[in-house]
Amino acid sequence: MFSTSKVLKDLQKLSSTPVDLPSAMSKERIEKMQSLNAGWKLSYATERVDEEVIQTLFQLAHDRNALDLMQQMQLGKCLNQIEGFTSEKKSVLHTATRDFFKDQLSSKEADSARRGAYEEVEKLERFVQLMEEREWSDIIQIGIGGSSLGPKAIYQSLRAHQKKPVRVHFLSNIDPDSASKILQEVHLETTLVISVSKSGTTLETCQNEERIRNAFASERIDPQGHFLAVTAKGSPMDNPAHYLAIFYIWDFIGGRFSATSMVGGVVLSLALGFDMYWKLLEGAQAMDRVARSSVNPKNLPLMGALLGIWNRNFLHHASLALIPYAEGLAGFPAHVQQLDMESNGKQIDRQGNFLDFPAGEILFGDVGTDCQHSFFQFLHQGCDIVPIAFIGVVKDQYGKDLELEGTSFQEKLLANLFAQMIALAQGQKSENPNQLFLGNRPSHLLLTEVLDPYRVGALLAYFEHKIAFQGFIWGVNSFDQEGVQLGKKLSNQMMDGFRCKKSMQSFSSPIIEACLDLTEDFL
Amino acid sequence: MFSTSKVLKDLQKLSSTPVDLPSAMSKERIEKMQSLNAGWKLSYATERVDEEVIQTLFQLAHDRNALDLMQQMQLGKCLNQIEGFTSEKKSVLHTATRDFFKDQLSSKEADSARRGAYEEVEKLERFVQLMEEREWSDIIQIGIGGSSLGPKAIYQSLRAHQKKPVRVHFLSNIDPDSASKILQEVHLETTLVISVSKSGTTLETCQNEERIRNAFASERIDPQGHFLAVTAKGSPMDNPAHYLAIFYIWDFIGGRFSATSMVGGVVLSLALGFDMYWKLLEGAQAMDRVARSSVNPKNLPLMGALLGIWNRNFLHHASLALIPYAEGLAGFPAHVQQLDMESNGKQIDRQGNFLDFPAGEILFGDVGTDCQHSFFQFLHQGCDIVPIAFIGVVKDQYGKDLELEGTSFQEKLLANLFAQMIALAQGQKSENPNQLFLGNRPSHLLLTEVLDPYRVGALLAYFEHKIAFQGFIWGVNSFDQEGVQLGKKLSNQMMDGFRCKKSMQSFSSPIIEACLDLTEDFL
Repeated sequence: MFSTSKVLKDLQKLSSTPVDLPSAMSKERIEKMQSLNAGWKLSYATERVDEEVIQTLFQLAHDRNALDLMQQMQLGKCLNQIEGFTSEKKSVLHTATRDFFKDQLSSKEADSARRGAYEEVEKLERFVQLMEEREWSDIIQIGIGGSSLGPKAIYQSLRAHQKKPVRVHFLSNIDPDSASKILQEVHLETTLVISVSKSGTTLETCQNEERIRNAFASERIDPQGHFLAVTAKGSPMDNPAHYLAIFYIWDFIGGRFSATSMVGGVVLSLALGFDMYWKLLEGAQAMDRVARSSVNPKNLPLMGALLGIWNRNFLHHASLALIPYAEGLAGFPAHVQQLDMESNGKQIDRQGNFLDFPAGEILFGDVGTDCQHSFFQFLHQGCDIVPIAFIGVVKDQYGKDLELEGTSFQEKLLANLFAQMIALAQGQKSENPNQLFLGNRPSHLLLTEVLDPYRVGALLAYFEHKIAFQGFIWGVNSFDQEGVQLGKKLSNQMMDGFRCKKSMQSFSSPIIEACLDLTEDFL
Repeated sequence: MFSTSKVLKDLQKLSSTPVDLPSAMSKERIEKMQSLNAGWKLSYATERVDEEVIQTLFQLAHDRNALDLMQQMQLGKCLNQIEGFTSEKKSVLHTATRDFFKDQLSSKEADSARRGAYEEVEKLERFVQLMEEREWSDIIQIGIGGSSLGPKAIYQSLRAHQKKPVRVHFLSNIDPDSASKILQEVHLETTLVISVSKSGTTLETCQNEERIRNAFASERIDPQGHFLAVTAKGSPMDNPAHYLAIFYIWDFIGGRFSATSMVGGVVLSLALGFDMYWKLLEGAQAMDRVARSSVNPKNLPLMGALLGIWNRNFLHHASLALIPYAEGLAGFPAHVQQLDMESNGKQIDRQGNFLDFPAGEILFGDVGTDCQHSFFQFLHQGCDIVPIAFIGVVKDQYGKDLELEGTSFQEKLLANLFAQMIALAQGQKSENPNQLFLGNRPSHLLLTEVLDPYRVGALLAYFEHKIAFQGFIWGVNSFDQEGVQLGKKLSNQMMDGFRCKKSMQSFSSPIIEACLDLTEDFL
């Protein structure tokens, strides 16, 4: 078990006297504690670590076979399972959806997955060319969770490069107002709908697709020629009579890890161009190679994972704020929140034993500088210490920056970013307790030159692998989500309850009856 | 001090054997543990409390003079200060911006504040009538933090009722891409700009206003007739030569509490109509009256505050997820996150003593059902227990719901909401550890019939007062934000750094130099 190893005792000992950042911060520290790979620079001088801590964390990674497991994952070994219990039992091969570039991995599973994925990519490229002739005003991607958050985050991050005037809408929620609002905005005649569900049975997605089809019908527009599907072969949605084209995904690609598959590929290629999608894949694959390369600071996702474990399990900080100082990355906190909390929000290890240490973390965030004027009070002086993952970009995306009072907006943005890191780390002495900042609030920074598809792809894969590494080291299965099943089961019972209520039948459960009664008597 | 009182010991004792929800849940419990006021029903059967805990929490509220302090606040007593130290020193009178209805409070301060606020409301009503003649395609509200999040959350919640086709944009971030994106979307000829800054010196707001004025100039459009200001009398923005109209706010209205003042009033009235704004005020004022009424379950904000303190200080849950099952309320988690974390993310009490218990909490959230497919795995089976504040609405907003398979979308939405509450509370036994749900994960629900301005106003004030009550009981000053000052100071130094770098001058600080050097050498 994690908690009885020698390296763990070493880390616990080190954590009793962590680096004091107010005294340790220096130019040399910042210059030394940084690492560059795949277009991204990781600066970790403002984390409470020193060389000894880093080396001991590397030892932990070795002891827990982190790099082996990463390689096994990318080779297609069966890692999504709980040994000895009924569970998922499959490989985890989202990396195969982009392993089309340098240093391809080879195994029976990975080769087969790559071939299948590449067929879809080629099919998509041809399809995008065909669609060039049509003028779409709107694209609606219907999908929820992983079929929404990743593609949306990537789309937003690259929208500045969009040449066509097409508007992209993401429809996920079962809330009827979600579709109502979108239907108010689109021109159905020139709207393309992409329905995304691996199983082809996701409640929200199927219902919303039906609703949009109804809207086409009520405007007397033939839906033929307007609907695409992204689903698994053989699913209820795999029906060519219903769709202009069907693109496939596979069981070995988890929803939250599916952004580079057809789940993201179709919408991104249609809105931004196939070349942008291809560059995204290249960047993601570059970070895949980084992740399986070595145990040292050049392995950025492993570094991110280990710094997180240090903060979580040794300095006992239970959450992480993800703060991109880039409007284009506004969708990343929600996507990475899902990646992190759904993957590692687990209570048992891969053998079914209850964990005797905390895994996972609460991840939340928003863009800077906005949140400096919102929850940063808590980050500077709150009772709990919240480690922060900052993201920065050197250049703006639209190329329309303006210099006022001697600095550009982009420089002001970066100035604010660096200022927060230093303020949190160094703090400030004061006789006035309200103006006292204790410092030692850890953070790190991922910095890149510009948000282009390659770098966005690399960033996406950075988070996927950071989170997978943490799961490997904690020993949890990061790839299932059994915790969402009970809610699904009960929600079916509640829906039955609504049907009973309308038909004046008696309820199966008094608790369900009491819940539905809450919706009455507001006077 | 908080931690030495008898009631605290009583609560600590009670918290050693909190209610076991899997065995306690029943129809009767749900029927009993609910309370209705100002259009909102609070259901707290799924919190780990019983009658004795509730009564003891009321005793805590009495001991800490919570109701008195709420009344004093609304009467304009000086509550924003740290006694004995240099600090803010002012009253907290956001409630005066809407005390125009039943049972008005009277004191010298409150009367004067109400008169001033009412003058602005009347001025706004006349101005909106004047503007009726102009056809605006776009409104840009420039403002950050409280000048953005509250107005945006309210606007989104009522947009379904919007009759005019005007598009509303919120520009907050110093990131140059924020303004670039908006400028790409608007028609400046028919764009109205509302610049909002109490001090008239907020970096982001002033710079963005300048940027937008530049855009007008480069399109050779006279900005005269396009710009409005919301600011304090005598601020640098209080200059009639620059604005078509200026609306006032006062020092006694904190940014995050300013949504019902002109900060929200101008944009909401222009986009949605003055009547909607007026109804919003009426709903907020109704909840203001509820908040000062009594110590019992009818006082919804006090109940919310006490349930939060029970979870935070006695059951030791350090965070709160805010999950509205209503697309219209999508902006509320970000607004309430600011309200909560900026108000109570404090380390000292009102006398300047360091707290010996944790105050404040990490608040995050998103809309259901979306987040069921995202971070709910963590909420059901994660290592940390995260209490949840659910919000539900019985009817949809657009009136375009559809029944499929025997239930409407709205019923499916509510079914999911109730299912999550019950699943989290009751859990599920299983021999398979991966399918085991321990239950006892607390939540409560705020439910209303429909999202109209009155109910949105009441909801807004509910959160304002819930958070103020928690501050009163914890003994912190919820109304300042000294924690954001250090970052501002350092960011000015970093901006100087950028200027030095460009003019090849030497740097004042080696750490600043090292930070700026990070932006170079990406190969």
